[in-house]
Amino acid sequence: MNQEKLREYAELTVRIGAVVKPGQYVVIRANPEIEEFAAIVAEECYKAGAKRVVMSWRSFAVDRVGFKYASAEDLGRATAYDIGFEKFQTDELAVLIWLDGDDPDGLAGVDANKVAQARSIRYQATREYIDAREDKHQWTIVGVPTPKWAKKVFPDLAEEEAVEKLWDAVLYTARCDKVDAVEAWKAHEEELKNRCDVLNSLKLRKLKYSSKNGTDLEIGLIPGVIFLGGAEKTIDGTSFQPNIPTEECFTSPRRGEAEGIVYASKPLAYQGQLIDKFWMRFHEGKVVDCGAEKGEAALRSILTLDEGASYLGEAALVPFDSPINQTGLLFYSTLYDENACCHLAIGTGFPNLYPNFEKYTLEEITKFGINHSLSHVDFMIGTADLSIVGVKEDGTEVQLFKNGTWAF
Amino acid sequence: MNQEKLREYAELTVRIGAVVKPGQYVVIRANPEIEEFAAIVAEECYKAGAKRVVMSWRSFAVDRVGFKYASAEDLGRATAYDIGFEKFQTDELAVLIWLDGDDPDGLAGVDANKVAQARSIRYQATREYIDAREDKHQWTIVGVPTPKWAKKVFPDLAEEEAVEKLWDAVLYTARCDKVDAVEAWKAHEEELKNRCDVLNSLKLRKLKYSSKNGTDLEIGLIPGVIFLGGAEKTIDGTSFQPNIPTEECFTSPRRGEAEGIVYASKPLAYQGQLIDKFWMRFHEGKVVDCGAEKGEAALRSILTLDEGASYLGEAALVPFDSPINQTGLLFYSTLYDENACCHLAIGTGFPNLYPNFEKYTLEEITKFGINHSLSHVDFMIGTADLSIVGVKEDGTEVQLFKNGTWAF
Repeated sequence: MNQEKLREYAELTVRIGAVVKPGQYVVIRANPEIEEFAAIVAEECYKAGAKRVVMSWRSFAVDRVGFKYASAEDLGRATAYDIGFEKFQTDELAVLIWLDGDDPDGLAGVDANKVAQARSIRYQATREYIDAREDKHQWTIVGVPTPKWAKKVFPDLAEEEAVEKLWDAVLYTARCDKVDAVEAWKAHEEELKNRCDVLNSLKLRKLKYSSKNGTDLEIGLIPGVIFLGGAEKTIDGTSFQPNIPTEECFTSPRRGEAEGIVYASKPLAYQGQLIDKFWMRFHEGKVVDCGAEKGEAALRSILTLDEGASYLGEAALVPFDSPINQTGLLFYSTLYDENACCHLAIGTGFPNLYPNFEKYTLEEITKFGINHSLSHVDFMIGTADLSIVGVKEDGTEVQLFKNGTWAF
Repeated sequence: MNQEKLREYAELTVRIGAVVKPGQYVVIRANPEIEEFAAIVAEECYKAGAKRVVMSWRSFAVDRVGFKYASAEDLGRATAYDIGFEKFQTDELAVLIWLDGDDPDGLAGVDANKVAQARSIRYQATREYIDAREDKHQWTIVGVPTPKWAKKVFPDLAEEEAVEKLWDAVLYTARCDKVDAVEAWKAHEEELKNRCDVLNSLKLRKLKYSSKNGTDLEIGLIPGVIFLGGAEKTIDGTSFQPNIPTEECFTSPRRGEAEGIVYASKPLAYQGQLIDKFWMRFHEGKVVDCGAEKGEAALRSILTLDEGASYLGEAALVPFDSPINQTGLLFYSTLYDENACCHLAIGTGFPNLYPNFEKYTLEEITKFGINHSLSHVDFMIGTADLSIVGVKEDGTEVQLFKNGTWAF
């Protein structure tokens, strides 16, 4: 891959994604396979004035043997090391840069319940730190091709060619094919912000989804909870970009208000398993039934992770002709696939969408209707004929999406 | 590389090197490039009953940019993360397995003083934990070829072939070419133990080195301080093998008693720099002068790291016809090169060689004559004609080495 393009992508990650500021600690999460690119990103962090870059490597190869042999209790138990890592990030409000090159099949064959259990145990033991830095530090997730991921997306190509092709797609969807990627991102963020301004000005109370594929779903919205797109802000006002790429205007629907049925329009890659041709039926906000032609057990395991896992946490509007959908690829990566078209997520919502959220505890925010769960799983529902109608406070309706894309 | 041989080598590492016991935590330190082999070692740890394997990855590519841009203070400062990691290892007496595939030039071009300073700052802030686990947990260092290391050893070969060749050498010196490597190691450990028993029975007070290359050095030994070779023991009696390979019977000489001159017989690879054709002159135990045809500045930086860095910490006896020397290779790795022939080390000594060492503080042990420093740098002095004469309490002399190898 063109070294100049890689450098530009690293720069975009640090300056538009994470917005690293002088004196900040940065944590880079990466797969060992992308050591070389991680070092380029680390260098860009230091150039931006980072005090120190701390690596957090994630190896699926090692994790897999752990999940094979050790118990969820032993894997989940928070040692002084695990607590130290969380405490450090909170003490320093370290910036998090997640270089996502995860092998989609990295945890194939692993007991998904054990993974969820270990994760839950760890979270309970460390949540005081994790919750305490919520909305106080910048973070960003960007894709970085690895051989295994590339071979999953392009199974018929030789490894090297597959990696090259995936880099092309990653740089294209990150607008790094543009002359000035940083400028292109600023314009894109502006457009997303304008879309959200319109949506927020309508003061919607409901969204009504319908498609010829059978989707017929109505979800409730919370007064005052906004649509957000593009950049986010920390409490102290630092703007950053949580996802590169991003194409969505998203909100957290009201827990307890969802009625009807929704059909997924793309397969869902979840911890090494593919869930395909699936649907969920909602009643009083909760998934009361579901089915899948493939991976139904995995789908059910997602829904039963905890009490909040079967309620909606997110509704996101993405035009069907997004750059990601235009590639025609299934990326087997939520970061990309969720930006292909409209999606929903079951699991935890976004407290920071609530007005003056920083004044409330997480428990209060949950009471206001923003769902809480350990889980947050996006699934695609956008189709070429998707219609979304917004219902305002006075009951009047506004066409938001028509034929799969913006109607305004 | 033959997968069966790799599995056997991993097993040797876990069962003979680290001697992982059921319920133990294990830390595996590894370079990102050897993820696949690290996962095999992790699996062998779990098979041996490990409670959990925690990875500690070391990336030279990332470290290098850190040392280029950040200050020693910022890099060395112990965050909650750094302290958590040390505390965890001490709390759990975690077993340490160091898979050493370090690129010999990994820190080339980096300010060696900054590295030493950062290391010193970190050590001061975490030593209470590090010292508290001393001699209480098993640890082992084994070599694992990486492309960069292999290309350094075999610069004229293509990368893949170089890695293959280095694996051959690593497996040969680890006795993994034998039908049953574990059995071969047990026999080898027995032989080293017998050599040490003879040395210890002599109750030596001095070693006198001489060689045609100009070496003429006399060093003092501390009554009661033993020669150790092969396996070591934790305080609770668990036998383990700190180095694979190992060919040495070593002791800690008496600080303050070294007179004469010693010539290195092989180059010393130190943090990306090669120190070659060098000598040191000792007076009252301390290096009072030194010279090198190449890398003299690096040599002087080693000697001035701290107060103890210019005193001897180790004297090790290794026959000149050791398997490592027989390969004819310079490995650019202390683990191998120090086992090629006789060597000394400047810097810290080994408190655990002192009788009933666990009853004394580190400060007391230092007063007894075992040197203490942050540094410990081995350098080779073995030659084909090296003579070593031991002087007993009553002044009688015993020929220990003749023509570079054991005289008894």
